[in-house]
Amino acid sequence: MKLPGQEEFDISSTCENVATGEPESGPGSGLSPDGPSDTDSRELGVPKDPVLFIQLNELMGWPQALEWRETGRWVLFEEKLEVGAGRWSAPHVPTLALPSLQKLRSLLAEGLVLLDCPARSLLELVEQVTRVELLSPELRGQLQALLLQRPQHLIWTTRTRPCCWSARPREASHDEEAPMKEQHQNPLRHKLPPGAEAAAVLAGELGSLTQPLGVFVRLQDPVVLGPLTEVPLPSRFFCLLLGPPTLGRGYHEMGRAVAVLLSDRQFQWSVRRASNLHDLLAALDAFLEEVTVLPPGRWDPTARIPPPKCLPSQHKRLASQLREFKGSSARRRAPAEDRHSHRPHPPSPELRRTGRLFGGFVQDVRRKASWYPSDFLDALHPQCFSAVLYIYLATVTNAITFGGLLGEATNGAQGVLESFLGTAVAGAAFCLMAGQPLTILSSTGPVLVFERLLFSFSRDYSLDYLPFRLWVGIWVAIFCLALVATEASVLVRYFTRFTEEGFCALISLIFIYDAVGKMLSLTRAYPIQRPGSPTYGCFCQFPDPQGNESQWTRTKPKDRDDILSVDLGLVNASLLPPPECAQQGGRPRGPGCHTVPDIAFFSVLLFLTSFLFAMALKHVKSSRFFPSVMRKMLSDFSSVLAILLGCGLDAFLGLATPKLMVPREFKPTLPGRGWLVSPFGANPWWLSVAAALPALLLSILIFMDQQITAVILNRAKYRLQKGAGFHLDLFCVAVLMLLTSALGLPWYVSATVISLAHMDSLRRESRACAPGEPPSFLGIREQRLTGLVVFILTGISIFLAPVLKFIPMPVLYGIFLYMGVAAISSIQFTKRVQLLLMPAKYQPDLLLLQHVPLNRIHLFTGIQLACLGLLWIIKSTPAAIIFPLMLLGLVGVRTAMEWVFSPQELLWLDELMPEKERNISEKGLEPEYSFSGSDSEDSELMYQPKSPEINISVN
Amino acid sequence: MKLPGQEEFDISSTCENVATGEPESGPGSGLSPDGPSDTDSRELGVPKDPVLFIQLNELMGWPQALEWRETGRWVLFEEKLEVGAGRWSAPHVPTLALPSLQKLRSLLAEGLVLLDCPARSLLELVEQVTRVELLSPELRGQLQALLLQRPQHLIWTTRTRPCCWSARPREASHDEEAPMKEQHQNPLRHKLPPGAEAAAVLAGELGSLTQPLGVFVRLQDPVVLGPLTEVPLPSRFFCLLLGPPTLGRGYHEMGRAVAVLLSDRQFQWSVRRASNLHDLLAALDAFLEEVTVLPPGRWDPTARIPPPKCLPSQHKRLASQLREFKGSSARRRAPAEDRHSHRPHPPSPELRRTGRLFGGFVQDVRRKASWYPSDFLDALHPQCFSAVLYIYLATVTNAITFGGLLGEATNGAQGVLESFLGTAVAGAAFCLMAGQPLTILSSTGPVLVFERLLFSFSRDYSLDYLPFRLWVGIWVAIFCLALVATEASVLVRYFTRFTEEGFCALISLIFIYDAVGKMLSLTRAYPIQRPGSPTYGCFCQFPDPQGNESQWTRTKPKDRDDILSVDLGLVNASLLPPPECAQQGGRPRGPGCHTVPDIAFFSVLLFLTSFLFAMALKHVKSSRFFPSVMRKMLSDFSSVLAILLGCGLDAFLGLATPKLMVPREFKPTLPGRGWLVSPFGANPWWLSVAAALPALLLSILIFMDQQITAVILNRAKYRLQKGAGFHLDLFCVAVLMLLTSALGLPWYVSATVISLAHMDSLRRESRACAPGEPPSFLGIREQRLTGLVVFILTGISIFLAPVLKFIPMPVLYGIFLYMGVAAISSIQFTKRVQLLLMPAKYQPDLLLLQHVPLNRIHLFTGIQLACLGLLWIIKSTPAAIIFPLMLLGLVGVRTAMEWVFSPQELLWLDELMPEKERNISEKGLEPEYSFSGSDSEDSELMYQPKSPEINISVN
Repeated sequence: MKLPGQEEFDISSTCENVATGEPESGPGSGLSPDGPSDTDSRELGVPKDPVLFIQLNELMGWPQALEWRETGRWVLFEEKLEVGAGRWSAPHVPTLALPSLQKLRSLLAEGLVLLDCPARSLLELVEQVTRVELLSPELRGQLQALLLQRPQHLIWTTRTRPCCWSARPREASHDEEAPMKEQHQNPLRHKLPPGAEAAAVLAGELGSLTQPLGVFVRLQDPVVLGPLTEVPLPSRFFCLLLGPPTLGRGYHEMGRAVAVLLSDRQFQWSVRRASNLHDLLAALDAFLEEVTVLPPGRWDPTARIPPPKCLPSQHKRLASQLREFKGSSARRRAPAEDRHSHRPHPPSPELRRTGRLFGGFVQDVRRKASWYPSDFLDALHPQCFSAVLYIYLATVTNAITFGGLLGEATNGAQGVLESFLGTAVAGAAFCLMAGQPLTILSSTGPVLVFERLLFSFSRDYSLDYLPFRLWVGIWVAIFCLALVATEASVLVRYFTRFTEEGFCALISLIFIYDAVGKMLSLTRAYPIQRPGSPTYGCFCQFPDPQGNESQWTRTKPKDRDDILSVDLGLVNASLLPPPECAQQGGRPRGPGCHTVPDIAFFSVLLFLTSFLFAMALKHVKSSRFFPSVMRKMLSDFSSVLAILLGCGLDAFLGLATPKLMVPREFKPTLPGRGWLVSPFGANPWWLSVAAALPALLLSILIFMDQQITAVILNRAKYRLQKGAGFHLDLFCVAVLMLLTSALGLPWYVSATVISLAHMDSLRRESRACAPGEPPSFLGIREQRLTGLVVFILTGISIFLAPVLKFIPMPVLYGIFLYMGVAAISSIQFTKRVQLLLMPAKYQPDLLLLQHVPLNRIHLFTGIQLACLGLLWIIKSTPAAIIFPLMLLGLVGVRTAMEWVFSPQELLWLDELMPEKERNISEKGLEPEYSFSGSDSEDSELMYQPKSPEINISVN
Repeated sequence: MKLPGQEEFDISSTCENVATGEPESGPGSGLSPDGPSDTDSRELGVPKDPVLFIQLNELMGWPQALEWRETGRWVLFEEKLEVGAGRWSAPHVPTLALPSLQKLRSLLAEGLVLLDCPARSLLELVEQVTRVELLSPELRGQLQALLLQRPQHLIWTTRTRPCCWSARPREASHDEEAPMKEQHQNPLRHKLPPGAEAAAVLAGELGSLTQPLGVFVRLQDPVVLGPLTEVPLPSRFFCLLLGPPTLGRGYHEMGRAVAVLLSDRQFQWSVRRASNLHDLLAALDAFLEEVTVLPPGRWDPTARIPPPKCLPSQHKRLASQLREFKGSSARRRAPAEDRHSHRPHPPSPELRRTGRLFGGFVQDVRRKASWYPSDFLDALHPQCFSAVLYIYLATVTNAITFGGLLGEATNGAQGVLESFLGTAVAGAAFCLMAGQPLTILSSTGPVLVFERLLFSFSRDYSLDYLPFRLWVGIWVAIFCLALVATEASVLVRYFTRFTEEGFCALISLIFIYDAVGKMLSLTRAYPIQRPGSPTYGCFCQFPDPQGNESQWTRTKPKDRDDILSVDLGLVNASLLPPPECAQQGGRPRGPGCHTVPDIAFFSVLLFLTSFLFAMALKHVKSSRFFPSVMRKMLSDFSSVLAILLGCGLDAFLGLATPKLMVPREFKPTLPGRGWLVSPFGANPWWLSVAAALPALLLSILIFMDQQITAVILNRAKYRLQKGAGFHLDLFCVAVLMLLTSALGLPWYVSATVISLAHMDSLRRESRACAPGEPPSFLGIREQRLTGLVVFILTGISIFLAPVLKFIPMPVLYGIFLYMGVAAISSIQFTKRVQLLLMPAKYQPDLLLLQHVPLNRIHLFTGIQLACLGLLWIIKSTPAAIIFPLMLLGLVGVRTAMEWVFSPQELLWLDELMPEKERNISEKGLEPEYSFSGSDSEDSELMYQPKSPEINISVN
């Protein structure tokens, strides 16, 4: 299943190979300037230029009171001054009119272009700029005074207080060079990386001019131009566009055009290196070559386009030029690349077979050993504290939920205490030994389902459960070690999305079915009292003072119509509630005594409340309310908060709802057993051998669950530096299997969602971002300490147990349902099932639908549904325990599907099997497959609801 | 409040004055070709050109197997062939690369341009086209054969079956001129209006050519070019762009550029009238002048932009050229126009004061009399049947809900039967007499709230309610007639949005408060049985066979600790449920006999279920699932379906939940009264005079409620042809007031939401629409018959009464809550309150926020909140009944606010008062105010969550 926040993480990380890396990699950004995101631009041979902040000062108030006012600013996107509202607009994609670009071109061609101007102050610059022939001396003086005027800036000092205008314009004075206080307080300054430069564009209409005046200046050394720019950055470029007032807003639009040009990375690169006017105009023409044109009748030029989620990369722009020549075939590359970006193919080097016994395992140990010291040193960062808190709460929530369910499922063979203890011991051990220490071990859905089946099997045959389970565990450990020895983990590539989705869907459906089923069984345990229902009435009977019980038995012949009526003799009775009656020595009599009213519906209410509240909180993240920190908190802790709300509601009304069973002391939940499970108990000796059979099934399940998770966690997009350890991980799981079986604790494997949440909380991101630009991903703090601390805290939390008995079971069922629903809605399969219900006209513009015919998609979905139906039927028969084998059978079904679907279709609907993939690249069926990079069609996703890429088993 | 579906209606209708009118007004579209939407283009002097369907056939398979394949098509937006998926993409805004437009220009400049080509068949056309000098004879032959090849089209025969490709390409034969069967089956054909023409663009790379070949043909008379186009329409334009394969996809892009150009209305207009190549190129240059340019680094050219909700109109494009010269001041026009488009200012001619007694009323009667016969004839349309069904169900739902609540509120003085009878009588009478017969009369929230206050007032002073109410009604009728006589309806313009929002918010809050309050009072009526609660235990006591009652009273001294225990003597008792016990002659004994368990929580469940279900169904309309007809049904009937679901759930469990009280016979709910209310009853005579005081308050309320609704219904955007009748409407309400008071029926005024739903269901829309274009609004079927039939059916439904007793009250409370929540979330005030909780960074890009500083918006919202708080406090005191006066006081507060806010701010936040408005236009404060048209900034709304414009009282 997906934890809150996971979805966003995945989506944003698909853009990572797109270069948005300007700000974070300025000379001193401190956030690892040589992160992998830079390689992109390096490869292209584009050295890093400083980030450029561009501002447009417009000349207002002609002819009465001339003043400069900043009306627009750019880093990546445009922010426009909303004059009436006194605020900056939301960042948006700038749109230009073509004529303004063309007019600008001719103005520059005729105007003054100073490249590498040696001016060292605003005054010098102004003198240089006004040295144009067409100006008369008095006009020159007027212009100089105008240019030295202090412009009006709108500076937001804090985010909550609306805004403050800078000082009213005043005459230039000798201290003009000193940046103003407001400039330094400008919060924008902290968003720009050190080393950033500014560009000032001044545009407007001036009645005293007879001819348009265009000046473009590149300063030799960037100079702080006093109060000209709103941030006190040294300016590199200066552009002046003035003219007689005939053109109206034409100069404003031309000023915007210069600013947009300068904000373009390619143009900026060229103009920084331009040696003459010709170079400048060539750069402008190159820009024009690449613009996107929207036809006038179909698009309103005043509409604001919000910043796209992924920016087209520099790489892409070069590649799009390449594509021009390579023709349309380049487009067919898309699916293969799309797979590349988020699927485990091609395999990481850790998944290459060595051919030696335990060869992969030895490699893993060697690789990880070298990183071991840094695994602790790298944890010294404040971010790790918040990660520990978040993951600790998630782990405890999981331990409570699964502990409660396991206790019910195994009739008390395990319980919350075992869950806490096992999580702490197994998790901590795994963090210390594992190949991928970011993994969080947890009880997962598939293992829980298997354990329940194993328990009911052993009950059906009257076996002693825990000893039987111990032998299953021993065999599983043996099988898993054999898988490690034979390097079987490389087979994980045969588990395509088809298999993963079958796996996830089945477990999710079992979760949903069980949650609802348990709720309904509660209403049977606490029957609803209908009018006329027989379970009505109760009273308290006391023995008569002589204690003569015989009087009670004196009965009249029963009335045929009223079999429930009890003929009472000479009796002392009262209407005390049953518990108090028993306390006072009486006996509660009547069918109503054993029913507790109101519990059934209240349980339903608690169930729905916790489910809906958890769902709602999960979606808070994408709302507009509250600061983002608060939203993230609410969303991250949705399960915890939903449980707390349920407990609060229950405590407020004080009804006797069924509560979580918690032992009073620190001892196993099952009465009369010690912590070590005896190896045989009441079972015959041969059962220890027969246990190999269910162990084989469980091994399949554990292998699938563990390795699918491991592959997801070690995907390239997370940019892990220290490598994976598939074989070592499986080895650790096997060893822990032995330990937990011997102690009678739950079994553990890697849990996808909570591990991803762990990684998410350890993301390193660029902090300095241009307005409208999402922060870029730099990597993950890979270390062993956060996990270790989480599990130590979980171990300590065993003493919390007394508090846990206040948690009503319906609340846990609600969380259980939430987990199932969240998991099943995260897979592509669900999206495709939904397509079945959508008329073709209303279907979203998914990439899948653009490349595969609808009936083929429906056929694929239909086959998946049929497989799921079959699995469900098997799960409902006495042969349910063999379901792991059937999950493995999905691989066979998937292979058979190659007869029905073409490789292209499977590439989009699923992914290719390893042999097929090799075939294709050999046969040249997909010649561009080997081409790497991000210049695919995936940018079309920008406006499309993107289906999440992770499909995971429930945990 | 807003009924489901209303929101969409409003939003779409704000685009109405934008000319999207090409398709619906083709020469024979049958849907009133001279609808008001045409005036737009007429005014501009642009005669109507036929709709043009453009298709791009691309040459594929060079060099092996050449074939033409249709890869794109345009009417308004672009649809691209998804080759892999075998389907047409969703319609999207076409984006072009600037170089392809420039290359196209040079190709056309050098190529062959045939204007008014006299070809009469494909063969003739091909001969004309290939008569180019640069072609060698054999190349000419090859090209002719190629052009006569049948192209491949993708034609979707039905929407559900995926698709079928047209016949494989085969050699041209002599029957090529005959359109194929597939062409005729093409569903697109029915979407294009009669008279539509086609344009065929053929592009591709041909290795045997040495030089690019560009041909543009305008045919003298449109000719069906056989299988060339996918729809068998006569073609007007033909364009061929071929060249050697060096350019790659360049020809495809140039082909797209031609198609996009032709789909542009302005370019099409020019090229239809072009007399030479120069005109053609000038049209292309004019197009380039107007394109919107997106910079390359900030926008991915492959991203698909979905069609905007409002298209920029022709008018707008002219105006934007005008704006170029008028400068930035043109932008300031926006707020005034925005008001224009959806606010009642300037007043309709019906609201102009005549200055004579009953002058307006007489005018109204005269105006409506002339339309009277057509008011019945215009109803002869099948659409009216579905309107009747929809409005009938909405009316009955309203009658049930309000009847149930009124019955409770007045302790049975009115009930469901009265509600049905009154609705039928008053509604039908109003439909026959009223000025605006589209209005649906109904019980509304404000009147309900007042009636409840009046009832509790009369109970507090032990008055005879119905006679007192009769006098109030008589006085109200007198006051209303006075208002009609003095033409007071013109004062409605003083009720600005500020007043309306205060009105709506107060009533909505009362609804929400009451719904929740009633639910809580249910849990008091059916207490929850907690463990240890005293209300536990019940048994059935029978008299002993001798009937000796004295035995029952023999009691022991009571135990101090157990005051509830009843010492029983020699007793026959049973545990029969109370009703059966009584039936068998026993007596239920014990505190638990009077409590019914489980009802409280079940009621909460029913309440929440019906509320959430109604809310969810309301939102089904905007989902992607199911065909749109089904979604509309589910959404329109959300209340009915929610009630049915609640009843079903209740019936399934069969619990004794409190049900709607329905009399068994056709007689007033209050026992012992006839249908006519006696004028004095038990009240003193002077009360008939004193009733004038509450009547004054009620008159204010009725006047506000009635006239605000009437203004909303008669807004210009609904394009009503038969005019309004404000004075006549108020007169009818006054007369009906008298009638309903005399019969003791509920009071009725016009209900905003249900009337708007009525109008919505009678919308006339253009049926033939280009892909991606929303249907355009033509007007409303104005007639009296649908309303009349609805109320006759409502009258007949009185016989449904026996069925209504199965409706549980909690379900009605749930619907009540839904009404309150829906109403309060529809007003701009709520949006502004939400802004208070949003950090400035995350606020939506609303127009309001672009023009008014945030702290001013918050101040305005704060004043509104304070007023609302004050109203709420008054409503909670014994003086609650004066709340209509306080509502009127809002007008005063609004006037005082002119000291705090500038007119510009008020223009955005509210609207101007009549005097202020006059002042402004006189003083020239808003000089552009008088400018009419749609060329404002409102297109910026396209990407903005738009706040709905109607703010209405709850009904």
